[in-house]
Formats: sequence, structure tokens, C-alpha cells
Amino acid sequence: MRIALLQSSGRPGSVVENLKVLDEAAGRAAAAGAGLLVAPEMFLTGYAIGDDIAHLAEPADGDSADAVADLAGRHGLAVAYGYPERDGETVYNSAQLISADGVRLANYRKTHLFGCFERDHFTPGDQAVVQAELGGLTVGLMICYDVEFPENVRAHALAGTGLLVVPTAQMHPFQFVAESMIPVRAFENQMYVAYVNRVGREGEFEFVGLSTLAGPDGVARARAGREEELVFADADPAFVAASREANPYLKDRRPGLYGSLV
Amino acid sequence: MRIALLQSSGRPGSVVENLKVLDEAAGRAAAAGAGLLVAPEMFLTGYAIGDDIAHLAEPADGDSADAVADLAGRHGLAVAYGYPERDGETVYNSAQLISADGVRLANYRKTHLFGCFERDHFTPGDQAVVQAELGGLTVGLMICYDVEFPENVRAHALAGTGLLVVPTAQMHPFQFVAESMIPVRAFENQMYVAYVNRVGREGEFEFVGLSTLAGPDGVARARAGREEELVFADADPAFVAASREANPYLKDRRPGLYGSLV
Repeated sequence: MRIALLQSSGRPGSVVENLKVLDEAAGRAAAAGAGLLVAPEMFLTGYAIGDDIAHLAEPADGDSADAVADLAGRHGLAVAYGYPERDGETVYNSAQLISADGVRLANYRKTHLFGCFERDHFTPGDQAVVQAELGGLTVGLMICYDVEFPENVRAHALAGTGLLVVPTAQMHPFQFVAESMIPVRAFENQMYVAYVNRVGREGEFEFVGLSTLAGPDGVARARAGREEELVFADADPAFVAASREANPYLKDRRPGLYGSLV
Repeated sequence: MRIALLQSSGRPGSVVENLKVLDEAAGRAAAAGAGLLVAPEMFLTGYAIGDDIAHLAEPADGDSADAVADLAGRHGLAVAYGYPERDGETVYNSAQLISADGVRLANYRKTHLFGCFERDHFTPGDQAVVQAELGGLTVGLMICYDVEFPENVRAHALAGTGLLVVPTAQMHPFQFVAESMIPVRAFENQMYVAYVNRVGREGEFEFVGLSTLAGPDGVARARAGREEELVFADADPAFVAASREANPYLKDRRPGLYGSLV
């Protein structure tokens, strides 16, 4: 399956404009043969939009989800995107995966919130592993800071995730995460990791781009620069299986020794 | 505390010669101000020595431990080294830390054995975390493949390890571990990691060198090439504490979500 990584900050504060950017990117991605388009954390609304987070938050099956389902169906590819999710009075930092048929396949609420800004605006989710089947791969969802915790990604590997999709809002000076940690996560868990970032300055934050798709061999198959960009790479289910045979980390674990982690 | 990384394969099969190499390196390390010298996995005997492993294995308080204690005392620095440990009929792949006063501070038995060669010759240890206090740091011991399991290193971080000492016998084509994974382990656990490798061809194996000391910022402070080499870097307890404040991975963990790991 070909995956398109949409490295973009869209138009912070305007859902309408961001849906247009997503529509246009989905067209280009589909034309390039992609089966999945991934957009960054909070792409639907913008990230550093303060109290507008609560105002713009929508249910997982809200109008914007319908709009994404519509554009996914028109272009014939699945779409994963970050957005603020409203559930009654509670707001989550969420990511949703919608199929090429417009079906909502999975919705994930960020479990590891980063810093004061996120703790002020979001409630953390409580479900570590959210998955769906797509393109012959078990696809898992995670958001930004979540992936920096090795326990979290390991839980996905143990649950069979072969492609971890990670919308992110990665800031200066944490380039190390995109450059080094993402390939290591892919290698140590024998999976693909698609890490898709925002770019440029937004409020107090400066996003560093460097969106990456790394494979189970630790090799980055796509790596964006610091500007808005649509980059592509392929994920092959057979390569995940072969790599897990060659590099048996998951078999060689000794769970009885890890008791202090929980 | 200054740490000297002895990247060397010594003389496989000759304990006497390897003690001479260790003695000479301890002299150079002490002269450069080091408080700790670290030698690779199985340095005392060689690694690819087949059934000689069982013949040369010694108790943790055997003659060779006395010889290491003697040279540590003469040069006035602590020494960590890998060796095959005999305990009755059982042989472990072990690493021992001996103080500048000649006291055996800690002895660790490798818990995650790598491949058929190691499973044929060793019994795995059952204690995940072995530590000692040295130079103002809590020092942990681990061996080679152990460090590739993020759960294992996390257990050390949770137990307070500030400097993880990892004698290794890292083979081609796994350079990725030295180059990328070691800095990531240091960063994600907010600790120093001293990874000290063998070099060159030995039996069926080709060791890749690249010994590394990485800090809690993910930066490699020392990195050897592919040849025999003695490299130095400093580990600062105050920097560990400051880095953990700035980058609160250990506080931000959500242990309740990691149940599937154990």
C-alpha cells in the first residue's frame, strides 16, 4: 500500500480551508497511487488556536467527519487526520481513520498529553491500542508524544500493528524524535511507522516538519524537509512478516522481567 | 566521572593475555582521569571460542576477578568487564563491576540471549536490574542484546539507573543498534548509556565496533570507529537530574495502559 504523508499546517482556525487543503492533497495522493493519506495532529482546526479548540471540537461522527468521508470516497483512498473531538463536555485530542468507502474505521484519543498547553485543553484518552485493517496491514493510531513512550508502541506491536500511523505536532528543539526515535521505534517493534508533522511557526510553537515513514528495518523510506510537502512511501505486509522472522524481538522478549513497568 | 570505553577483542582464548590488555588500558584510562573503564562482552576469554566458554568460565569471585580487582586497585579506577561465569554446572554470560578499591560491586547475568550460539553455551539470568553506586551515579549493568529491548532499559530507568554500562559483542549487520538505538535509549530514559563493543572478525562473527557513550539528551559524547580504540567521555549526575526535569518522560508515563507488556 502506498502512503501519502501530508506535511502541512493548513490554515489554523479555519476548518473549511483545512478541508479544502485535505481534498486537494487527497486528489494528488490518489493520482500517485496512494491508498492512504495521513494528515498531522489537529489538522482539521489548527493546533495553537487556544480556546477555539473547544469551540471547533466536533463529535467523531460530526459534520467534518462526513466531509472527510466524502472526499475520501470521491478520491478513492483512506484518510487519517487529527482533530479536536467533542464528547459531551469533554474534549479529546483525537485522530480518525476513514476508509475509501467513507466508513469511519477507527477513532483514537491521545493518551499521553504533552505539556501545559495540551493539559489545559484536552482530556487524555484511556484506550492504548486502537486499530483497523487496511491494505493487508493492521493499522494502529497514535498521536505525537504517545510514540515517544516505548511501552506504548510495544503494546501496538504485541497487538499485531504492522503500520503505526502517527499524526504529530512536533516542535523545536525535538527534531531528534523524527530523525532518530521514529526509525528506532519501527526497528525495535518490527513495523512501519508513518509520522506526519506540521511545519512553521504557529502561536508560541515552531513545528519542525521532517515527516518520516520508517520500515521494520529501521530505514526511512520517506523523509520530508521543513516546508509544506506531500511525500510518499510504500508499506508491504510481506516485508513486515519476513522482517519479524529475521529479527525476532517480539519472540525473544521476557515479559516476566518487566513487572516494574506496570 | 570520566569513563573509558575499551573497544577491543583482546586475544580470544587467552585469559592471561586479556588481563594484560585490560591492565594496560586501565593504566592509560587512569592517566586520562577516568574513574571507570568498561570492556566488551566476554572480554576476559573471547566470545567465539566455542566449548572453551565452559572450560574457561569462572565464579564471580574466581581468580580472574581477583586479578581484575588487583589491577583496578593499582591504577585506582573501577573496571566493568564481560566474562563467562560458572556457578556449579551452570554457565552465564555475565558482566562484573569492580571498584577502585578492588571490591566486587555488582555482577549481572545476561537475561536476553541472542541466537543459537548463545543459547547453546549459556543459561539466561533471571534478575533484570543489577546496580551499584559509583561516582555519584547509580550504575546499571546490561549486556548486548538486552539493551535492544526497550522494556529492559525502562526497568533500569524506573529503578534509578543514571549510567547504564553495556558490554557488547555487536555484529554486522546490526550497526543500527550502535548508531541509532543507543542514543534513543539514552534519550527516552534520560540516562547515560556506555555501549562498548568488540572489533573485527572472530569465528563466524564480524564485530562492528562503533562503541558509544550517549547522554540523556540523545547526543553521543564518544563514538569509536571500527578499530581497536580507547575512547573517553564524561557522565555528570547533575545533568541527568536537570535533563529529567526538562524532559519528564518518566513522570508522564501511564503504567495503567501498559498491562499487555507483562
